[in-house]
Amino acid sequence: MKALWFDGERLALREIPPPELRPGWARLRVRLAGICRTDLELTRGYMGFRGVLGHEFVGEVIECADTGWVGKRVAGEINAACGTCEACRRGLGRHCPTRSVLGILNMDGCLAEECQLPAANLHEVPDGLSDRMAVFTEPVSAACEILDQVPLTGRERAVVLGDGKLGILCAWVLGTVLSDVTLVGRHPAKLERARWGGLRAVPADPGPEPGADLVVEATGRGSGLHAAMRLCRPRGTLVLKSTVAAPGDINLAPLVIHEITVVGSRCGRFETGLARLRDHRLPVERLIEGQYPLDRGLEAFEHAARPGVLKILIGPT
Amino acid sequence: MKALWFDGERLALREIPPPELRPGWARLRVRLAGICRTDLELTRGYMGFRGVLGHEFVGEVIECADTGWVGKRVAGEINAACGTCEACRRGLGRHCPTRSVLGILNMDGCLAEECQLPAANLHEVPDGLSDRMAVFTEPVSAACEILDQVPLTGRERAVVLGDGKLGILCAWVLGTVLSDVTLVGRHPAKLERARWGGLRAVPADPGPEPGADLVVEATGRGSGLHAAMRLCRPRGTLVLKSTVAAPGDINLAPLVIHEITVVGSRCGRFETGLARLRDHRLPVERLIEGQYPLDRGLEAFEHAARPGVLKILIGPT
Repeated sequence: MKALWFDGERLALREIPPPELRPGWARLRVRLAGICRTDLELTRGYMGFRGVLGHEFVGEVIECADTGWVGKRVAGEINAACGTCEACRRGLGRHCPTRSVLGILNMDGCLAEECQLPAANLHEVPDGLSDRMAVFTEPVSAACEILDQVPLTGRERAVVLGDGKLGILCAWVLGTVLSDVTLVGRHPAKLERARWGGLRAVPADPGPEPGADLVVEATGRGSGLHAAMRLCRPRGTLVLKSTVAAPGDINLAPLVIHEITVVGSRCGRFETGLARLRDHRLPVERLIEGQYPLDRGLEAFEHAARPGVLKILIGPT
Repeated sequence: MKALWFDGERLALREIPPPELRPGWARLRVRLAGICRTDLELTRGYMGFRGVLGHEFVGEVIECADTGWVGKRVAGEINAACGTCEACRRGLGRHCPTRSVLGILNMDGCLAEECQLPAANLHEVPDGLSDRMAVFTEPVSAACEILDQVPLTGRERAVVLGDGKLGILCAWVLGTVLSDVTLVGRHPAKLERARWGGLRAVPADPGPEPGADLVVEATGRGSGLHAAMRLCRPRGTLVLKSTVAAPGDINLAPLVIHEITVVGSRCGRFETGLARLRDHRLPVERLIEGQYPLDRGLEAFEHAARPGVLKILIGPT
């Protein structure tokens, strides 16, 4: 089968054997996949990953011991956990220390004709969701993780920093439970695209009033943390979504003085993500800026890497 | 009256007028006061403070419109809040943006013969607590703030980094609710002094096993954050007590990847602190390394500033 393979230095379209089915796993035909910022980072050496890239997809089950799955259209949780360690016993397989992660850690990804995942990771995509919506299940679930981690009453004022894909998705998801959400960005075109429902989308300068109850840092820049600390009220909550280093000496004293709670937030549960996509019709298709067949995958990566580009998909066009 | 006065450059023993009683406030004779690390920082320019230093004390009320207070032995909350802003309405006067803070911000402190505070800030010291125990009310309350902020079941494994006064007090306070607490430090003599009840006190190298549910960073060094992130389990809680900058670029990605919650933690409620001191007989007197009369206050500061010294008190000897 064809696959977008990263050998540690170069990304290439290669012909490789299709995955051999492991016990308890399912083989999937990839219907549509997305390129994520993490994929771009991986091609720059992040995690030292080698293999097939990709972790955002909608697929169809073509082989599985549990034959009930065969033929189903699915999204799949990307962490394959051991199921027996302490984290797994707490229901936090996403934090299993020996987990492999689709297209990120010790497991080939979905930027290929086929991929495989544990059957336990699969979620059927509801009929009402198109592939072009359901392909956002993974990043929407990551945005929904905030709702899982931070108790909200509905009366909070929230600010999301960063008008990239994840920032916009976080703002939309928060908008499904809060009436006062502001997205802060640097790109007028992205801010325009982000406006949905009651969401305010504003430039960083002058930015919103300080004193927000909840600030989500999704700029992908270390410097976003300073802005986030400045905007958060005493005893407020600051959600960290960016996994980049903050440049220069960093003074975390404001966190202590104002007793701010910082919540590191990563992947989320797919049930939650799929339900939000379906019930709230999040306008995720607005984020799509291009779709390429797998054969033109390298071109797709080049497009995705251009500054300011939102979502690039790989699948039949 | 005599007072230890910092003019922005030098600390000096000065003769100044006693405080004029404001409406709703109480005038106090200081019975015993403590020198805190923050006081040392203030003499190095922190907060740009000028005036009488000191915020840890036990005093006796000598004048108050509410005459019920007169003659009482008290400890006093150090934040004087406006009482009407949003933070105050939430019961968080400690975060009132226009607050003044005893000996730290726009208010003369307690390293003097007398000081004053709003009557609402006063807490009577229970009879069973000596001055030498009760003078620890402020730092013990700051340690107890962790219990106010982090829900604990009693089954958590906790690690406290830093064998300074605050680290030791945090470890003792956690030891009143958790059976598995480890204090990590660099000073054998302090670790020896810290051992109390079931508390393990160990050197930083090799330090405890990673995977702690709760890690308290109280090293007073920015680099402590790295060690704290390494020791905290996925979805665990990291309490920040140090208000110092982390040196060099700092990679907060582990917080995101492991979805760690960081809780900035500062002052605490005095009811809680006094109750812990009384009910658990925390062995705070072990931390006292010297006591000087106010007249020898400068000498007391020199002693407090020596590396490795724990608590220095100012009061009748």
